Amino acid sequence: MALYVGYLAAFLGMVCWIPQARQVWVTKDTKSLSLTANLLFLATVSLWLVYGLMITDWPIILANIVAVIAMIAIVAAKLKFK
Amino acid sequence: MALYVGYLAAFLGMVCWIPQARQVWVTKDTKSLSLTANLLFLATVSLWLVYGLMITDWPIILANIVAVIAMIAIVAAKLKFK
Repeated sequence: MALYVGYLAAFLGMVCWIPQARQVWVTKDTKSLSLTANLLFLATVSLWLVYGLMITDWPIILANIVAVIAMIAIVAAKLKFK
Repeated sequence: MALYVGYLAAFLGMVCWIPQARQVWVTKDTKSLSLTANLLFLATVSLWLVYGLMITDWPIILANIVAVIAMIAIVAAKLKFK
């Protein structure tokens, strides 16, 4: 049971920033996004990806590759459309 | 070494949304935040918290309690100042 909760959390964590990435590129509006928070979270998911690679844990690697890509798109939009 | 990367990732993940929560309550501007993304991420950290409680893993519990509080503040601001 705990395992299913963990898998569901990992899956949601993987996809949840896709709508935000889409929104900032469609609207070109990033005013209310905190650059600090988004850079810190990009660092967070990048470190999880490195951690996953170091211990060769595929669920961690896959979940964080998607999040890293979404967060790069969000931070890039924030820097471009400020 | 991998463990330190994991701890650093957990710590950053715990604190990273605090600047965003602060910003939306100070500026009252939430226009560029995606409600879908923030609700999904609130669900994500809530599930991680439940998972941490189920397996009694204190690092997971502590990291996600802070994130849940920050995300509730962000989602509340998004609903209040839309």
